[in-house]
Amino acid sequence: MNLLLLEEQDFIAPQQVRLSGRRLQHMLEIQQVAVGDSLRVGEVNGLMGKGTVLALDQQQAELQINLTQPPPAKLPLTLLLAMPRPKMFRRILQHCATLGVAEIILLNSYRVEKSFWQTPFLQPEVIRENLLLGLEQARDTVLPSVRIEKRFKPFVEDQLPALVAGTTGLVAHPGDFPACPRALAGPVTLAIGPEGGWIPYEVDKLCAAGLQPVQLGERILRVETAVTALLARLF
Amino acid sequence: MNLLLLEEQDFIAPQQVRLSGRRLQHMLEIQQVAVGDSLRVGEVNGLMGKGTVLALDQQQAELQINLTQPPPAKLPLTLLLAMPRPKMFRRILQHCATLGVAEIILLNSYRVEKSFWQTPFLQPEVIRENLLLGLEQARDTVLPSVRIEKRFKPFVEDQLPALVAGTTGLVAHPGDFPACPRALAGPVTLAIGPEGGWIPYEVDKLCAAGLQPVQLGERILRVETAVTALLARLF
Repeated sequence: MNLLLLEEQDFIAPQQVRLSGRRLQHMLEIQQVAVGDSLRVGEVNGLMGKGTVLALDQQQAELQINLTQPPPAKLPLTLLLAMPRPKMFRRILQHCATLGVAEIILLNSYRVEKSFWQTPFLQPEVIRENLLLGLEQARDTVLPSVRIEKRFKPFVEDQLPALVAGTTGLVAHPGDFPACPRALAGPVTLAIGPEGGWIPYEVDKLCAAGLQPVQLGERILRVETAVTALLARLF
Repeated sequence: MNLLLLEEQDFIAPQQVRLSGRRLQHMLEIQQVAVGDSLRVGEVNGLMGKGTVLALDQQQAELQINLTQPPPAKLPLTLLLAMPRPKMFRRILQHCATLGVAEIILLNSYRVEKSFWQTPFLQPEVIRENLLLGLEQARDTVLPSVRIEKRFKPFVEDQLPALVAGTTGLVAHPGDFPACPRALAGPVTLAIGPEGGWIPYEVDKLCAAGLQPVQLGERILRVETAVTALLARLF
């Protein structure tokens, strides 16, 4: 946790917060803070700054806060992601928040097992919790938006073309395609497939919606590794 | 497992292997192969090719193999890595093998907790096992070399300058430094610090040995994310 993220309900006065639970435990056990210490804090979807510990015991902490600094810019990226295996999904949410993805769209694909859509990790509060962990790591406050699209064909045919318009549209897919471009300046729409990759029908449909297939070399990467590698290369 | 890796002791004839244990379980439960099926196989530190299942039961499998294809090229990279927290260390070994790192040097640093060096994950057979998992993912056969240097100063003063000579030497460090370069063609020596980063004394020492500090932006990445992001950008 490189940034203590504050929620609206933590505020007991305009510049004062009261914390308990996970964040208090982290302050006590990992950061080992004491009264008078100063911490990096930020308000969810708001500014960042300093918090000074006014009072602290095993039940709660009170901090005086001063928020003046804007959070870092997001990547100008809409990430279209075939729904990952649940265990990997949580880590990918954290990665995406850390790396600064602005918008995530979870999409069905032939190789997404039906059971993946049943995971409790898709509940809004669990998604939010994992995104917050990623933001705390990066020192960012702004939650990425997450959208769920369980029907591949209607989404790709009816909605994707408008999303791709005005962006560089890319679909990551191993094969005889151009290498993924580097250091793009403008907005990007990037589609990353499931373990085992998109099926040819899906690649065709994504291309018809305006995406270009690109590859990262002959090594097969795990989805979470591919997300980080593609983003580091594109921006 | 995108490649079934074969060890010397698996061979029962020049082009025939007998397998049991983890690899057999994977063939039975995940790949659900049957007699006559063909699989991608490779010999550790050797060629890759096809294996045809000759016989298969719950105890063992026999395959006829034909190895003709060279493994993918390694990255021309020596990675100097402050010894990570044990849990993350295993994943980083797998990542490094997947991404094609040729040589890993595990180094001490002020912010490496002493207990990290006591982990059983540093035993040669556990290191090898995790590297093999990464190679199986990538479809590579060649084990990266892993070296352990528990004394920062003598290593950096006496050995590092010769390792850096003839390479682009970089130390990843957040701060007011040039952005990490992209798409380098030649060999690279890259140093990545622990959680919390190198201390200034260490950065000075690494620079005196011929490394240049570079940064990846204001977001703080986990070490494993930083490894992938830096490699994707450098090569």
